[in-house]
Amino acid sequence: MRSFTSVHDVASIGIPTILEQATQFVENPWSFEHLGKRKTLGLLFMNPSLRTRMSTQKAATLLGMDTMVLNAGADSWTLETRDGVVMDGTATEHIKDAAAVMGKYCDVLGIRTFAGLTDYEADYAEVVLQSFIDHSGVPVISLESATRHPLQSLADLITIHQHSFIRRPKVVLTWAPHPRALPQAVANSFAEWMLHADVDLTIVNPEGYDLDPRFTAGAVCTHDQDEALTDADVVYAKNWSATTPYGAILTTDPSWCVTKQKLALTNNARFMHCLPVRRNVIVADEVLDSPQSIVIQQAANRVVSAQVVLYNILRSMQ
Amino acid sequence: MRSFTSVHDVASIGIPTILEQATQFVENPWSFEHLGKRKTLGLLFMNPSLRTRMSTQKAATLLGMDTMVLNAGADSWTLETRDGVVMDGTATEHIKDAAAVMGKYCDVLGIRTFAGLTDYEADYAEVVLQSFIDHSGVPVISLESATRHPLQSLADLITIHQHSFIRRPKVVLTWAPHPRALPQAVANSFAEWMLHADVDLTIVNPEGYDLDPRFTAGAVCTHDQDEALTDADVVYAKNWSATTPYGAILTTDPSWCVTKQKLALTNNARFMHCLPVRRNVIVADEVLDSPQSIVIQQAANRVVSAQVVLYNILRSMQ
Amino acid sequence: MRSFTSVHDVASIGIPTILEQATQFVENPWSFEHLGKRKTLGLLFMNPSLRTRMSTQKAATLLGMDTMVLNAGADSWTLETRDGVVMDGTATEHIKDAAAVMGKYCDVLGIRTFAGLTDYEADYAEVVLQSFIDHSGVPVISLESATRHPLQSLADLITIHQHSFIRRPKVVLTWAPHPRALPQAVANSFAEWMLHADVDLTIVNPEGYDLDPRFTAGAVCTHDQDEALTDADVVYAKNWSATTPYGAILTTDPSWCVTKQKLALTNNARFMHCLPVRRNVIVADEVLDSPQSIVIQQAANRVVSAQVVLYNILRSMQ
Repeated sequence: MRSFTSVHDVASIGIPTILEQATQFVENPWSFEHLGKRKTLGLLFMNPSLRTRMSTQKAATLLGMDTMVLNAGADSWTLETRDGVVMDGTATEHIKDAAAVMGKYCDVLGIRTFAGLTDYEADYAEVVLQSFIDHSGVPVISLESATRHPLQSLADLITIHQHSFIRRPKVVLTWAPHPRALPQAVANSFAEWMLHADVDLTIVNPEGYDLDPRFTAGAVCTHDQDEALTDADVVYAKNWSATTPYGAILTTDPSWCVTKQKLALTNNARFMHCLPVRRNVIVADEVLDSPQSIVIQQAANRVVSAQVVLYNILRSMQ
Repeated sequence: MRSFTSVHDVASIGIPTILEQATQFVENPWSFEHLGKRKTLGLLFMNPSLRTRMSTQKAATLLGMDTMVLNAGADSWTLETRDGVVMDGTATEHIKDAAAVMGKYCDVLGIRTFAGLTDYEADYAEVVLQSFIDHSGVPVISLESATRHPLQSLADLITIHQHSFIRRPKVVLTWAPHPRALPQAVANSFAEWMLHADVDLTIVNPEGYDLDPRFTAGAVCTHDQDEALTDADVVYAKNWSATTPYGAILTTDPSWCVTKQKLALTNNARFMHCLPVRRNVIVADEVLDSPQSIVIQQAANRVVSAQVVLYNILRSMQ
Repeated sequence: MRSFTSVHDVASIGIPTILEQATQFVENPWSFEHLGKRKTLGLLFMNPSLRTRMSTQKAATLLGMDTMVLNAGADSWTLETRDGVVMDGTATEHIKDAAAVMGKYCDVLGIRTFAGLTDYEADYAEVVLQSFIDHSGVPVISLESATRHPLQSLADLITIHQHSFIRRPKVVLTWAPHPRALPQAVANSFAEWMLHADVDLTIVNPEGYDLDPRFTAGAVCTHDQDEALTDADVVYAKNWSATTPYGAILTTDPSWCVTKQKLALTNNARFMHCLPVRRNVIVADEVLDSPQSIVIQQAANRVVSAQVVLYNILRSMQ
């Protein structure tokens, strides 16, 4: 594996192998503590992050890597992404120069960028992430991009794998309300990973919120939450903003909140969310504080997913 | 010792033992440089910090720990502290979820939070600090909370202990003016620690600034600064805002500034302040730049106090 | 070497020795990875920095040092630099106290501060940098100050040295336009270092932009860019604001932009810039993206220059 931006990057290794590696790192987190010796991981955040930053930094430490964290604030350093522009505006550096320089200081780069949620084509072109891949000269890890959050999705997959289901589990990704317009990255990415895993995926959301079929083709997609939840083994709640019109908030209907009553429709399902979560908006306290919730285990697995990814990248560099 | 939030947490170890450990770390700072191997310290600052951050990070390094620093800015990540709330406002995460997640990424957590200075009951309930203790599942160190600053107070105690006094020293905590409303944490905490140490404590402040008796019972409390300073061996200056009404600035009377003339009343007292200090407001240049000032030694001992605390927590984890 | 703020600090070692050390670190970056063991480098940024921070932190890691990074934001922590002031305004700490404390926590300090560009005398007095040298008690490295950027200049020198020229090279420092008023530090410092190196230096800029002769005496100084560029072996482009009146933007004349046509006047010159660079304002894409541009190599050498400086400081401390 060179760079890691989606489920497609683990295709050559194979998901079963990835899950075996995850199990080994859970059992012995320090088993490869010298693999990353003398290697530097640079983490660049174009948007604030605490969870991704801590878990990735911890994973790097477990593998013996040094980490340098950069927070690119809007006022201190803005990147130009267009080619051929006369840069006499606010952007202080072209992304291709920034990427090339960082690639000289770091052996691996992690990049976090968010969707702007105003221009669908621009967001889905993933210009920032792709520029770093094209110009840095080193492996690049997505720490969440405009349209995907693969480290989260891998952690989600590891978490589901850690639970024994009698049958191939029915996994339901349900939209839930939120007061602010959020990207589709977590939902897109979760769908994409589940469709490569040994589960049956159902996606349910209000009309206008249908995700791009490039990520969801193969899943059962519906607009009826009760029907979707029926007999589910895993309920994954997440808000995302509308796809039509792009980035809009079409509804905050509280009836989509995952309550105990909703979970009663399921096959005693585990409840998942990537956190941070708005309590009693996305999910009721009674669910989140019940034994059915596995969100903390899921968050803990962010370290494991980052460690698996860094491990495979470091192995490729040897 | 599990968590460290006040003098009460060192009761089982005993202050004499703590002071012996401090002496050993001053003499050989690297003597336990492998104790914290493979242990991660997470430092969460809800308010800016330079001194506490640097000294605690240095102490962790001396003990071989890895450190991850998080600055929780008001705009990037705001925590809900109330139970049962519908989180449809500005708070993006509930503190109990944040604490549980961080406890998965770190072996020890340090938390810095400040008094809001508008609601006495809320500040003195120490909700943020207590939530991290209750929900993180790992030892928690106060890096200054709403009502106490125990790492500072321990450094103060170590500093006083490093000076030989012929008799049990008279220590005077004197209020001093400041242009902004400051918390009572340093003063509360200093009083509490001194009352457990082998010193005689006098506290002097203008009317309306009397500290909570929960912290000061046993000290001589007065409103006459000259009388208080007379024959003092140690003068500790600090501003704090009024207790009645809570958080107010009742006076900025410059006659409370610690000058050379004031120090002439003392028994050639050492001058202490936790820094940063407003020169010629809290204390005159002529005092701070004289040999009687031990504020830099006191600041240097912040590393020692953090090292002693981390050492005892790491020992308890073995 | 104790502190490092200008070319004068390497006089006793000598530039040839410095360049030999640089060559050795390029060939074997980890050859002294234990030299900085148990030593802490504190990096204090009064202004945002990504390149300087990453390269210096990487250099410290290569030498086995621990690094603590501090970003002093204007709102969180403002330093008083005047003596004898009654500090009842916005400044929360006097620089001499801050420097003394940081010197207790760190073995070496790096300080980044910028020109205010309103008061020539104040900027050129270098009060902040000098205060840290005077009061910290430890070696201080300039990470760019109001009037110099010596780590950049040393990287520039190393880069030029890595290119073989048949003759003593003609190096041309040319002013180029920029939409914002920038300090003169990079230009001053580059001039100063080149005048101590085995090159012929020409400086060309519009009228009103002549640099202080303290930095440029010995160089050919002219206002005719085409004449200056003729037969150049190295073209170093950089914007700086006017010296008369100080800090002004007198022109943004696009004819000063370094284009392919301009480079045609030279002896197939290498193109240099310290980055970040405004594309098609300072320099045309056609130049920056051509093989004549060595700006990425130059940026990579920032690690080398920081490593050489830290190496010599650490050697002096043994």
